Amino acid sequence: MRQLIVDTPSHAYPIHIGNGVLNNFSLLQPHISKKVAIVSNTTVAPLYIESLHTVLKNNQIEYFDIILQDGEQYKNHESLNQIYNSLLQNHADRKTTIIALGGGVIGDMAGFAAATYQRGIPFVQIPTTLLSQVDSSVGGKTAINHPLGKNMIGAFYQPQLVLADLDTLDTLPERELSSGMAEVIKYAILDDAEFLTWLENNMAALMQRDKATLTQAVYHCCQMKANIVAQDETEQDIRTLLNLGHTFGHAIETEMGYGIWLHGEAVAAGTVLACQLSEQLGSLKTTDTERIKAILRQAKLPDTPPVFPFERWLAHMRHDKKVASGKMRFITLAALGKAQLTTIEDEQILKTVLSNYLPK
Amino acid sequence: MRQLIVDTPSHAYPIHIGNGVLNNFSLLQPHISKKVAIVSNTTVAPLYIESLHTVLKNNQIEYFDIILQDGEQYKNHESLNQIYNSLLQNHADRKTTIIALGGGVIGDMAGFAAATYQRGIPFVQIPTTLLSQVDSSVGGKTAINHPLGKNMIGAFYQPQLVLADLDTLDTLPERELSSGMAEVIKYAILDDAEFLTWLENNMAALMQRDKATLTQAVYHCCQMKANIVAQDETEQDIRTLLNLGHTFGHAIETEMGYGIWLHGEAVAAGTVLACQLSEQLGSLKTTDTERIKAILRQAKLPDTPPVFPFERWLAHMRHDKKVASGKMRFITLAALGKAQLTTIEDEQILKTVLSNYLPK
Repeated sequence: MRQLIVDTPSHAYPIHIGNGVLNNFSLLQPHISKKVAIVSNTTVAPLYIESLHTVLKNNQIEYFDIILQDGEQYKNHESLNQIYNSLLQNHADRKTTIIALGGGVIGDMAGFAAATYQRGIPFVQIPTTLLSQVDSSVGGKTAINHPLGKNMIGAFYQPQLVLADLDTLDTLPERELSSGMAEVIKYAILDDAEFLTWLENNMAALMQRDKATLTQAVYHCCQMKANIVAQDETEQDIRTLLNLGHTFGHAIETEMGYGIWLHGEAVAAGTVLACQLSEQLGSLKTTDTERIKAILRQAKLPDTPPVFPFERWLAHMRHDKKVASGKMRFITLAALGKAQLTTIEDEQILKTVLSNYLPK
Repeated sequence: MRQLIVDTPSHAYPIHIGNGVLNNFSLLQPHISKKVAIVSNTTVAPLYIESLHTVLKNNQIEYFDIILQDGEQYKNHESLNQIYNSLLQNHADRKTTIIALGGGVIGDMAGFAAATYQRGIPFVQIPTTLLSQVDSSVGGKTAINHPLGKNMIGAFYQPQLVLADLDTLDTLPERELSSGMAEVIKYAILDDAEFLTWLENNMAALMQRDKATLTQAVYHCCQMKANIVAQDETEQDIRTLLNLGHTFGHAIETEMGYGIWLHGEAVAAGTVLACQLSEQLGSLKTTDTERIKAILRQAKLPDTPPVFPFERWLAHMRHDKKVASGKMRFITLAALGKAQLTTIEDEQILKTVLSNYLPK
């Protein structure tokens, strides 16, 4: 088991990474109160909630379950309201702790509910997907989607504790494993060329779910993200770089309908587009982009986006949260392992980048 | 004009109190960006929004309006969603500033929208009622109501600036003026016996809307609240005392249906009940309660609650945000000018207090 501390201006909290941490009450105990609401979904709950119940019951913690539909398309106001209703019906008060048991969608929604129920109650993340273990459970971003844009409604709100149990990855569908790997690869591209080489050498073992190799990758990504979040909790500055591939990626997700392309799949195609944009800006070589495409394919991820009209790309990207004073901003690459924030004033360059993926 | 600074751990911001501050661009300028969303309602907008438009137009600030229905019964998810939709349709980004122009309901909703749109954008409060000038615009509490409880969904989120323009009180209906006065009186009762005497001597002038006397009262209340909020931004401790009269008051509002009893009217009746509870606990004299009833009547406020069954009182009060680990907690008085937080384990004492107001 490995442990690290995320130290933000508002709050410091531990992340435990390893096998079986989900059932280790000594890790949970210092961070929860006498009453717990477990938020999970119809896929994850049947696999892991009983084991959590047993641990809580054996330690005289009162609990109740809030089970949501599974999928990005349910990360909306209706599911959020299901959480609020259940909290109120079960007389949850300001000391009740929410435990988010599931992937990024559950973590984002349970976290936003915790941030806003009675103006804020404690919560614990138990991420059960690779994507949520390396990304969404670290850093306190919580949100729901709005019909006009992904993650448009949310808050920065840090958990009390994160338990990343690698055993839960055993039941993860391969497409979901790949989706998480897109974020792992993203970390390497944006800030760590050495880690990129390590990933190229270890991708086979990672895709075969070798626990020791996975532990190393998850720990490394959490460490990178924790360092960035410690410097910039509310994304004023360097935290923006974590959005590499996400401006194009969110456009794909919104256009296709939430849940059709998985988040990591959209980010993978978006990362290739960010590489190609960097090529157009003269800061990256075609061979670099080819190298990224190769590792994405190794992780069974798409390296091209779906085809839809340029006007739709623009409409989605103009809603991006990085837009500032009306100007579109993208994360581009000065080199592999070195991301930067770039304002794009000339839309023609975007049309050039997307030209291969527009309807003929 | 008077000015004070609210200094919370998360953020410090100024409050300007005086005549005509709404039209003083030099006060607004340092705290807004190039694009502004004005959130107001159908009652206040016709009175003051044109004047704000002129000021913004003259200073090349782009703006758009979001006009909500007027009333506590509209402080709900639907109105909040109207704000989100308009922000998205008008391409509001993370630098867009929300200006809340209206009473406490507008401030609470616009503030919560600002706290959660794209995980937080700047906002400015221009409170146009006595209630919002002395209470809801100071301290960063934002919220919407839930069918099962008042202010159940919200966040602590501080504004960039508060402009309390006393000229806006000229158009306030008398019932609304009284409602605000309930909170003014509350401050005196909970922490300032000297201010209570001052209010007894000046209530006639206040109710006649004498500007100099009103300025003094508003400034004094904001100062008191700023001091408390500086010590306890997220209501872990002494800030709870500001809820004097509110446990009973929220029960009245929820039972009657939001907007039937005005907030201040419910707080006035709730404050008398808190006095009577304190009498039952042996810490207050009947003559003290009579003194409070008298000043409430001077301010044309009710001193008795509506009649409804004890079980309904209990049901509402069990949803109160002060409930901790399942126990009900009330603000009671150790003396006039000295409030305290009291856990009530024996419900019988509540039944005794409410006995005169239960159905026969």
